[in-house]
Amino acid sequence: MKMKLTGTFIQPICGGDTPVMNWSRAEWDREFAVMKELGIDTVILLRLFLDDWMAYDSPCLKRLENAIPTQLDYVDLFLSLAEKYGIRLFVPTYSPMHDWLLATYDPKKEFAAFKELVDEIWSRYGHRKAFGGWYFAQEISGADSFLVAELFQMLGKYVKSVSGSLPILTSPGMRKAIGAAEHEKQWDYLLDIMDGAVDIIAFQDGHVSFHQLEEYQAVNVKLARKHGIEVWSNVESFDRQIIPKFQPIAWDKLRFKLNCAVRTGHDKLITYEFTPFLSPYGCYKTWTESLLARYREWCETESRS
Amino acid sequence: MKMKLTGTFIQPICGGDTPVMNWSRAEWDREFAVMKELGIDTVILLRLFLDDWMAYDSPCLKRLENAIPTQLDYVDLFLSLAEKYGIRLFVPTYSPMHDWLLATYDPKKEFAAFKELVDEIWSRYGHRKAFGGWYFAQEISGADSFLVAELFQMLGKYVKSVSGSLPILTSPGMRKAIGAAEHEKQWDYLLDIMDGAVDIIAFQDGHVSFHQLEEYQAVNVKLARKHGIEVWSNVESFDRQIIPKFQPIAWDKLRFKLNCAVRTGHDKLITYEFTPFLSPYGCYKTWTESLLARYREWCETESRS
Amino acid sequence: MKMKLTGTFIQPICGGDTPVMNWSRAEWDREFAVMKELGIDTVILLRLFLDDWMAYDSPCLKRLENAIPTQLDYVDLFLSLAEKYGIRLFVPTYSPMHDWLLATYDPKKEFAAFKELVDEIWSRYGHRKAFGGWYFAQEISGADSFLVAELFQMLGKYVKSVSGSLPILTSPGMRKAIGAAEHEKQWDYLLDIMDGAVDIIAFQDGHVSFHQLEEYQAVNVKLARKHGIEVWSNVESFDRQIIPKFQPIAWDKLRFKLNCAVRTGHDKLITYEFTPFLSPYGCYKTWTESLLARYREWCETESRS
Repeated sequence: MKMKLTGTFIQPICGGDTPVMNWSRAEWDREFAVMKELGIDTVILLRLFLDDWMAYDSPCLKRLENAIPTQLDYVDLFLSLAEKYGIRLFVPTYSPMHDWLLATYDPKKEFAAFKELVDEIWSRYGHRKAFGGWYFAQEISGADSFLVAELFQMLGKYVKSVSGSLPILTSPGMRKAIGAAEHEKQWDYLLDIMDGAVDIIAFQDGHVSFHQLEEYQAVNVKLARKHGIEVWSNVESFDRQIIPKFQPIAWDKLRFKLNCAVRTGHDKLITYEFTPFLSPYGCYKTWTESLLARYREWCETESRS
Repeated sequence: MKMKLTGTFIQPICGGDTPVMNWSRAEWDREFAVMKELGIDTVILLRLFLDDWMAYDSPCLKRLENAIPTQLDYVDLFLSLAEKYGIRLFVPTYSPMHDWLLATYDPKKEFAAFKELVDEIWSRYGHRKAFGGWYFAQEISGADSFLVAELFQMLGKYVKSVSGSLPILTSPGMRKAIGAAEHEKQWDYLLDIMDGAVDIIAFQDGHVSFHQLEEYQAVNVKLARKHGIEVWSNVESFDRQIIPKFQPIAWDKLRFKLNCAVRTGHDKLITYEFTPFLSPYGCYKTWTESLLARYREWCETESRS
Repeated sequence: MKMKLTGTFIQPICGGDTPVMNWSRAEWDREFAVMKELGIDTVILLRLFLDDWMAYDSPCLKRLENAIPTQLDYVDLFLSLAEKYGIRLFVPTYSPMHDWLLATYDPKKEFAAFKELVDEIWSRYGHRKAFGGWYFAQEISGADSFLVAELFQMLGKYVKSVSGSLPILTSPGMRKAIGAAEHEKQWDYLLDIMDGAVDIIAFQDGHVSFHQLEEYQAVNVKLARKHGIEVWSNVESFDRQIIPKFQPIAWDKLRFKLNCAVRTGHDKLITYEFTPFLSPYGCYKTWTESLLARYREWCETESRS
């Protein structure tokens, strides 16, 4: 049996650290087809809102953020394509730009806003066959963000009351400076707070050094087993060391991280993110043609076990 | 009738925020052909001098800046291609790197240097059929730059004495922090100073938020009507929010700005700039193929009225 | 007779200021073929170690830096391709990230580590036909780095005792602020220290202004003649003035520097570096197709003498 990348983040809203695709339905259809061909069965929509823009025409986000709708309803589009290709889509809740380390951060207040958005999303898209889970988008990394864990507890409970058995995923960071033992301690505490509200944890694998990765990942798997949740690895496919930033990753680094995640016993491998950094159709295609070739070779050989 | 992008900036000198084309005559000919096909009738040469280099072998710029000539005479080349394709070319005056907010800035001294350059340009290229106007390249944005408005007054008068009826264009910035009312007040003052010297004003549309844009653009049109000049919108086709900077823009943003400029009654739409950010031949072609496709769809549908 | 680029740096390890190729043997073979076709007879491997990664599975670098091996042995691969295409490969020694301006920098200590690596490299690859020289990778630029010159003296003597007549190359920087006369004085001093240990000096041509370049390069040739070593010009093919950094260079600048290096009497022209900034196969291929076309035209015309 093989283990390979079977999930990826996806995003329609332009900004941040990934380039613009400017694709319409036909081009996204082609993209879903190649993802499916490569074995992707899970697509996670990264966000619903960024830099004034929202991924569907949401009255809730309009009120909360004065957000402007994109021309396409990307939630509908991605659900349609996910249905066509037999993929499940994770839908994000809101990720406002609030600083949860500030004294003013109030998870109860945050929850009140989120609650309405969850209702809106569920009433619009809850009946869709490909609606396969929820994504909690806050990328926390340590115990000082415990208020977000409390938000997750409230939000998870509410989401489950609305949508039943759909799994909830989050994808936190890791802190290289604290070491694997302290990471274990802090995340044991955070997962206690999140208990029953989060079903899958997928740590981002790019925040610790290559030398630290295996030790941290072993901790992550151990913690997940203890708390009875699934553990995926978010295998970043962009390089954190090349200038200018956010180009497709060096194959040796991707291979190292894939092998490390497999070896430490993760349940599933996902990536941030297929379209700009691995796709044969993305704007970095002159970079990714060789990266994708190396990845395909790896799937054919090393990932067998 | 449709309204679409009918003008663009163009630049041969490498540096700043746009990538290098390194094209010769054949490749620029292909570029003018596609611009013409898309409806471009106006091309504005952005600058004659940057980072030691000048766009033609100018004795004046050699003396003033010790500038080095490019291999091609780009003014001649672009005039030839403009003639071939029935496009008019706006030729810039000098844009030195002087800080016009310093107490030492003296528009009279600046004018003396510019005067010689205007004479040189006119004697070399003034007879060319495609020489369709002048571009004043200083990108001011508020009333504290009134000394540049005074320079424009002197320079405009001189340019008109030399070249007669050719229109003079400038493309200023806007300041999001001051609000549309204060913007109106400051530009009413600046346009008073420039009276009779500038014929077309084309504000850059990327300096205010998407939410502010319509209000600012309505002011711009109102001001232009009051002062009896044309008002174009400089619809930026690069994205100000994606890292790394200066990549082709998200289509939703370009569409938003195009529709806003049409709705507020601008006389013409130009862009900064076609070749890197929209062209099917530019080095960002793996980005722009979809952006251009979206723009073509917009031309076929939404821009009709 | 023509003078053109006949050498280039090459690098397999991802990071720093050049994008990732992620090529395997077939793609590097294609690259060596096009380099050969363009007249490249010398390839210099830039480094053996960067950001945790080493270019072959080196016990010495594993011990010194806890380095991780790349999947391919790039030294073996590049030697094989160099042999296939009749190219000579310069192999680097170690370039650790130590700051040689610190009081704690000790060239004797550094030499001890380097010595073992030289032994390891020579025992693994010394017999290879394409092993054509050594590259000392420290990019010093002025007299305050005299301790590195002392390291070079020790290391050069040792390398020659091991590998006999193979030439040793280094490629320093230049300092625009000090002027050509002071540059001459400082490098006369440094070359005195390196006497007998370095055979070829190839100054990087991008650190001084275009206006200064000819004067500095005349000094470089004069110094090399005085010290009895070869002088090459390292003609950088990336642009130092375009944002974002490290894109292929403007042709006018490359042409200026090529002509300047020819005119001042250099023995050979190399570039940093062919694959990302000039190759028809690199990830910047949509940039470099026109740059390479201009370079080919230059080879056919201007470089004749």
